Amino acid sequence: MEFKVASKILQANERIALENRRIFSDAGVYVINLMSSPGAGKTSLLETTIAGLKHALKIGVIEGDITGTDDAVRINRLGVPVVQINTGGACHLDANMINEVIPDLPLDELDLLVIENVGNLVCPAEFQVGEDMKVMVLSIAEGHDKPLKYPLMFQESAALIINKIDLSPFLDVDIDKIKKDSLSLNPSIKIFELSCKSGKGVDQWTSWLQTLTS
Amino acid sequence: MEFKVASKILQANERIALENRRIFSDAGVYVINLMSSPGAGKTSLLETTIAGLKHALKIGVIEGDITGTDDAVRINRLGVPVVQINTGGACHLDANMINEVIPDLPLDELDLLVIENVGNLVCPAEFQVGEDMKVMVLSIAEGHDKPLKYPLMFQESAALIINKIDLSPFLDVDIDKIKKDSLSLNPSIKIFELSCKSGKGVDQWTSWLQTLTS
Repeated sequence: MEFKVASKILQANERIALENRRIFSDAGVYVINLMSSPGAGKTSLLETTIAGLKHALKIGVIEGDITGTDDAVRINRLGVPVVQINTGGACHLDANMINEVIPDLPLDELDLLVIENVGNLVCPAEFQVGEDMKVMVLSIAEGHDKPLKYPLMFQESAALIINKIDLSPFLDVDIDKIKKDSLSLNPSIKIFELSCKSGKGVDQWTSWLQTLTS
Repeated sequence: MEFKVASKILQANERIALENRRIFSDAGVYVINLMSSPGAGKTSLLETTIAGLKHALKIGVIEGDITGTDDAVRINRLGVPVVQINTGGACHLDANMINEVIPDLPLDELDLLVIENVGNLVCPAEFQVGEDMKVMVLSIAEGHDKPLKYPLMFQESAALIINKIDLSPFLDVDIDKIKKDSLSLNPSIKIFELSCKSGKGVDQWTSWLQTLTS
């Protein structure tokens, strides 16, 4: 019973996600669904990415949070269009939530739209929202056991950003194990190691992103 | 429609949670539902707690993970009874999952049962499992904006463990803001600051726990 309901919800979501994707594609906008655990650094990555690419690409952002507008305020300071979605309790964004805010975005002026999902390493991976690509962030402070414990997110993501590498000397974390286990789950996943705080490694990420969207 | 279904699922869960709680209470076992984001340190806290209290209390553990048995293997090494639940994708434990493994636990021999939930700062807070108390862990590496962004977990928890305080010199994190915002959401929440790695602050937590279960 529960399974049938869940399956219907996922099917309806898939239909709206395809509609969103057609709208984004018609407007010539490349769309990233950005996911991670709470506090892995999605918004910091966005700030760093916007700072690095805003002269090359016109970027817009959708911020997904259960409540509050902290992240939208942070992004708005950088002078790019941002729309805040509050899920009101729901643990992930779905295609319908995105569909409803599309009219609030200047799509025709954008090259790249980043949708920052709710901080959650589980549920967001199950819901397409109309993206071209899913990207996930993992903070090394979360530990090296995460790929094998939360496999779906690693399997669904086209790129993995291993963030907060500046903390490496102070943690017992095996970054090679993170990479090895991620690749065992998803052999085509593209992996970047960086620190949004120090800036180390950010160039490789932004350069790659630029090749995808040009 | 979705709301009605969700409401029925929650009602059914509540009923089974009450049944679990009666079983635990009849056996004289105090039960903690331990929750956090992925990688905040639930299993490390459990290891530290067991090391500090195992001569004073008979402790048992239920490990909840989407997949794998890493955490149960870690706990088993400490010589306490442990049962692993794999949710197979589900992002939280529910009362029925707990009900099904109760026969696998030597309840009559236990004083304290800790149920380690799936790493997720959102969904587990919505589901009672039959616990006496919810306890949450927040790693300071997650940042000081978490209470206001994920309020339900802070509202539902009787205690907040602020973990990884050894990383404090290397992070731009305002621990006082975490405490202030947590107390604004939940004025009765009991807050502990500690490091499972260095052991600092652990005694206050284990002493408090011992007073609750004696």
